[in-house]
Parts: sequence; structure tokens; C-alpha cells
Amino acid sequence: VDSLSCTVLGFAGKLAQVARDDPRRVVHSLKAGLALTLVSVIYYVTPLFNSWGDSTVWAVITVVVVMEFTVGGTLSRGLNRALATLVAGFLAVGAHMAAQLCGEKGEPILLGVFVFLVGSAATFSRYIPEVKARYDYGVTIFLLTFSLVGVSSYRVEEIIELAHERFTTIAVGVAICLFTTVFIFPIWAGEDLHKLTTGNLDKLAEFLEGTYSNDLDELEFPCIPYDKGMGSECFGENSSWENLEDKAFLQVYKSVLNSKVREDSLCTFAKWEPMHGKFCFRHPWNQYQKLGTLCRQCASSMEALVSCVTTLKKSQYPEANPELCQKIGATCAAMSLNSAKALRGLSLAIWTMTTPSPINNDMSTATKAASDFRAEFSEDVALLQVMHMAIVASLLSDIVIQIGRITESTNN
Amino acid sequence: VDSLSCTVLGFAGKLAQVARDDPRRVVHSLKAGLALTLVSVIYYVTPLFNSWGDSTVWAVITVVVVMEFTVGGTLSRGLNRALATLVAGFLAVGAHMAAQLCGEKGEPILLGVFVFLVGSAATFSRYIPEVKARYDYGVTIFLLTFSLVGVSSYRVEEIIELAHERFTTIAVGVAICLFTTVFIFPIWAGEDLHKLTTGNLDKLAEFLEGTYSNDLDELEFPCIPYDKGMGSECFGENSSWENLEDKAFLQVYKSVLNSKVREDSLCTFAKWEPMHGKFCFRHPWNQYQKLGTLCRQCASSMEALVSCVTTLKKSQYPEANPELCQKIGATCAAMSLNSAKALRGLSLAIWTMTTPSPINNDMSTATKAASDFRAEFSEDVALLQVMHMAIVASLLSDIVIQIGRITESTNN
Repeated sequence: VDSLSCTVLGFAGKLAQVARDDPRRVVHSLKAGLALTLVSVIYYVTPLFNSWGDSTVWAVITVVVVMEFTVGGTLSRGLNRALATLVAGFLAVGAHMAAQLCGEKGEPILLGVFVFLVGSAATFSRYIPEVKARYDYGVTIFLLTFSLVGVSSYRVEEIIELAHERFTTIAVGVAICLFTTVFIFPIWAGEDLHKLTTGNLDKLAEFLEGTYSNDLDELEFPCIPYDKGMGSECFGENSSWENLEDKAFLQVYKSVLNSKVREDSLCTFAKWEPMHGKFCFRHPWNQYQKLGTLCRQCASSMEALVSCVTTLKKSQYPEANPELCQKIGATCAAMSLNSAKALRGLSLAIWTMTTPSPINNDMSTATKAASDFRAEFSEDVALLQVMHMAIVASLLSDIVIQIGRITESTNN
Repeated sequence: VDSLSCTVLGFAGKLAQVARDDPRRVVHSLKAGLALTLVSVIYYVTPLFNSWGDSTVWAVITVVVVMEFTVGGTLSRGLNRALATLVAGFLAVGAHMAAQLCGEKGEPILLGVFVFLVGSAATFSRYIPEVKARYDYGVTIFLLTFSLVGVSSYRVEEIIELAHERFTTIAVGVAICLFTTVFIFPIWAGEDLHKLTTGNLDKLAEFLEGTYSNDLDELEFPCIPYDKGMGSECFGENSSWENLEDKAFLQVYKSVLNSKVREDSLCTFAKWEPMHGKFCFRHPWNQYQKLGTLCRQCASSMEALVSCVTTLKKSQYPEANPELCQKIGATCAAMSLNSAKALRGLSLAIWTMTTPSPINNDMSTATKAASDFRAEFSEDVALLQVMHMAIVASLLSDIVIQIGRITESTNN
């Protein structure tokens, strides 16, 4: 009994965690339940049910498969479903008419050939990237409707009536879904994408600041423990180099690296969304994807930096060349703090949708620090060359260590 | 007319490209068409159609939504669909019986409440990662069947008969899908995962060798132009440093970085697959995911290395310290060639599913070269410290440049 209650408690804790991670999930679940209840009312209100008959099931099916987390997702699925049904219905009626011309024996054979051709072509079209991204669900529904109408042995007049009923019920289902998603606590994919992009910029800034700022709370993100800055942490006077691997800010870039899939799907959905809040219909959503790619490149450089910084910490040198070290440290602090400021400015500018103005100052300071550093070192050509070669060798030896890990894992 | 024929030709070229990228896509499309034609035969063969009536549409629906590229995918969807229908059917009949106890007025209200509760709970359960990964489709079907049966105003005896018919037709649909996927040119997710993993190891090796070897042809991969080795290319006697950014082998790690999504889905599907070829039912598919994570870490280090190597090339030094440079170059060549050999050995061992034996020699040579390099440099503490600080500063200045790009992109 004890182990059972333990399992139940563990499961409840997991559910609570899922809800805490994004409370809108609970809202969406309740909305889905509400939409289903609404559509089942159609079943119980007799006059409606009588006029539509068996086709009412299509309204229920539509609600179950069309209901999505974001408004854009629901719209995209709903429009895909409605349009695909319409197009497939017309095509199937055409196929029926063509097949009927061939007489009673030829009809099933010709219809079979049509189903085979359309089925193969539609399945193949899903491998075209553009179709896959925006119309994947539509192709499924197209194929479904075409096969259902095409292979059914009804007469054409019956089919047209049936198609009409089915289309009406699907439209009712889509309307119910849209009603619940748009009017009850709407969740906009565009807003999520906007938040994801500014969040990514903020995370890059946090890494460079070495801090989890409280600004994030304003953006409705979960609060993360406060930590001390990367500038002062790694290169400042009080830098301790201790437990550097445990510092939370050195992990913050990782979620940026993994944001691509979510960003792509949000972007696809956002394109379907109508005007809402500060976003117009043809908001340049593709720009967010471009910015996201740049952010991920930056995060991947940060990963390399973290591996260097942690190696540096492990091989604790006695202060061999304090003057030069201090100089480089100061340059590093200047670079990281100024780029962080620039990133914060960018994030704010995107968040408020204004043109970024005071950023360029911070950015030029950071760029100047970077080029100064390069210029200063280039004076000592011999040292620079050895250094560069050594960087390559050191990175390569990191790779050797990682391949060692791969070997171990394979042997297991 | 010319621009139209241009568009048509362009589209045809795109289709041909999609087919060339993976010819199995054409095979799968034809198989999907065949399965649809098979199921439509059920419609035309009158005795079968008469005994099942309207429920035959469920066989068609099943074929359209269950047919997947790999055997594992089809099995997973088919089993999900069959099981979910069964469970939801039983639950819905139970809900109906409970609701009938409440009299004619209470019944629709109680059923509405049931639909709301089950709908919300099922939608919420999809946010649990484990459910999402393996049973996402099953939850949709569960919800669909429960709402359909639950809200229908049939009597219970009719429902049981209906459920029986529907389950039989769904089973027929699943059987047809499995028949076409398993017996006609089967495409196994497990085999694809196996190929992806060994392919990733080979790509890492190619990067280190700086060559696209012909071994790949044996693994049925497209042939890529032959290039010269990374060892000799970057650190050898004839290293030219020219056009290094154009070298194809410096891009080869990128596809490894992006392999996670495909790997995860293949792994989920592979777990559903029965014994086939050299793979048993409980093949340790999770190990492939672990190995994949390590490979991606390695590829991300390679990205850092590429950025260093290309910077090194740009800042063409006069030979300032030829002796030391040659030494480091030799170490680098030793590290890269030996790790590449080790990777090739691993890849071969995984491909043939034997225990890797001669690998450890190469690996230990590479590891020795790496530690020798570190040991040698650690003698000159001052140089080492400056070097390490400089690496950090240099990586940081890379990040500054990338943030500059982000700023530019935002201003546009």
C-alpha cells in the first residue's frame, strides 16, 4: 500500500510540475474540454441533430483533431481541414463522374486507379519541405476525404448532399474551436515567438553578465536564483575560480541552443494569426527566425568559451605574468559587460517594438575593446602565432577527450 | 507561356530532388497508394460491405492516418489506434450506463460533465513528456472515440454492436497497413537509426581526416567529392591555408549537430519494431541516443575549432617561431589522425555489431599525444597562462563579433 501511495504521490507531483512549468496548459486543457462539451450539445439539441443526421460525428472529430494550444495552430489546422475537405470533395465527385462514363464494370477499376494515383501523389507531396511545413495536416485530410468520397458506392447526387452536410458540420466544429481559442484566454503563437526571441537575447546577456536579472520576472518567466557577474566572476579582482562548473549562468546558453524546433513551429503558426495586440497580420515573423539562428551561433561560441574557462580554472596557475593577465582580464570584462548591455538594449527594443538607439554605443565600445585586444597582441607576432597554434591544438585535444568518452560509451 | 513552363520545370526539378534525396520516399508513396487501393476493395466486394455497413469508412480512415514511413512508425500508430479505441470504447459504455441511472433529464447533463472531465484530463496528459513521446496519437484517438461513443444518443446494446464493428474495421485497416509496410520493401526505423549513428561517427572521422572517404558508398550514402586531409591540410608540410573556409570537410560536422530530432523520432519508432535482420526485439536503442549526444558535443567542439582555424588562416603570420610551430603541427596531426582512426574503428564495430578491439590502440596514441602536448606546455607556466587567458579573450571577441551581427540584423 505504501509503495502504491508513493507512486501516486510521485505521479501527482509530476502533474503539478507540468502545470507549474506553463500554467496555460491547464487553461488549454479546460478549453478543450469546454469545446468538446459545446459540440456534444449539438447532439442533444434534437432539431439540429435531425437535420444533419450521422454527419454530426464529423463536428466531434473536427473539434478533437483541430483544437491546438495556440490560436495560430488552431487556425492553421481548421483552415487546412476545411479547404482540404472542399478541394478533395470536388475532385472526388469529378473522379466519380469520369468513372461512371466507363460503365458498370470499368467504374470500380478506374476508381481504384484514381485512388492509387492520388494516394501516391499526396503521400509524396508531403516530402516537399514547403508542403510539410504548412500543409502537412491538410494533405492528410485531403487524402482522407478523397478516399472516403471516391470509394463510396453512393450515387453522385447523394454524394453532393453528403459532402454539403459534412462540410457544414466541419465548419461548425472549426467555429467552436476558434470561438474557444480566440475568445477565452487566447494563447497567441506570435506572442510566444516574440517572448522566446527576447528571452533568448536576455539569456545571452545573462551569460555575459553572469547574472540572472530580475527583469525576467517582468517578462513572466520563472524566477531563477541570483548569481554574480561573469565579468567579475572570471576576470574581476575578486575572481575565485572556485566551483565555476556549478555556476548557473554558465549553463544558461544551453536552452538557447535547443530553441530551434519550438521557434520554427511557433513561426509557422504565427503566420496564420490575424492582427492581435501590437502585432499586425503581416508581421515579419521570418526575421525572428533569422535572429534566432544568429543567437544560436552565438550560444555555440559561448559553449566553446565555457569549456575553455573551465579548463583554465582547473589548471590553476601561479600568477606568472600578473601584469599581462590583468590587462587581458580588464579587456574581457569590458567586452562582456558592454556586449551584455547591447544585448539588453536589443531585447528591450524588440520587446517594446521600438527602433534600438542607445545600443550602438555599448556595441561600439565592445567592438573597440575586441579590436584593441587583437591589435595589441598582433604587435608580438611570434607570441600571437604560437598562441593561435596552441588554441587549435588545445581545442583538438578537447575533441580527443570527447572521442575517448564516445569510445568508452561504445564499449559499454 | 515561357514563364509557366519555367515554373513547371522548376517544380519538376524540385520533385526529382526530393526523390533523389531518398528514393525510398517514392517506394513509400507507392505503398501508401497500394494500401488505399486494397482497402477500397473492401468497399467493392459486396458481402464484406454488407456485413459491416457504414463502419467500413473507419478502415479507410485508419489506412490514411496510420500509414507511416517506417515499420516502427506504422506499428506504433496502429497499436496506439487499436488500443485507444478499445479502452475508450469500454470507458464510454461505462459512462453511458452510469448516466442512464440518473434518469432522462440527468443523463445528458452527466454525459456532458463526463466529456468535459475526460476531454480536459486527456488534453492535459499530452503535456507529460513520456506520454507525448510514445502515446500522443493514442490520446487523440482515445478522446475521439470516447466523445463519439459517449455523446451519441444510441442505446447501450447498439453501442456495443457499433463498437465491435468499428474495432473490426480498424483492425482490418491496421492489418492492411502492416502488410504493405512489413512485406513490401520494409523500411525499418532501427536500421535507419543504426545507419545514422555510424554515419555520424564517420562524419566526425572525416572532419579529422579532412577527407570524404569512399567507405561511405558502402553504407549507401551519396558520394561526395574527395578532399585532402585535415591533418596535412592544416598542419602538414604542404599546408597552403588557402580557401580554407571553402573546404567541404570543414562543414561536415554540421549535419551531426542537427541530427537530434531525427534520432529521437527514429529511436521512439525503433522500440516498437519486432526482430528484424541483425536486430533483436529489445535491442538497446537508448544507447544510440547516448552515443548521439556525445557525438553532438564533439561536433560542437569541432565548430569552435573551425572558427579558430579560419581565424588563424586569415591572420597569415610570417614564420615567427618555425620550430615550435612545427612541433605543435606534428602533435595536431597525430591527434587528429589517430582519433579519426579510432572513430572509423568504432563506426565499423557498431556497423558490424562486433566488440571494438583494435580501436584502443589508436585511441591511446591520440590521448598520449594530447597529454604530451599539455605536459610540454605546462613546463612554460607563464606562456601557458597567457595563452589560456588569450584563448578566452579571443573566443569572447568572437562572441562580440556575433553580437554585432545580431545588432545589425535587429536594426534591419
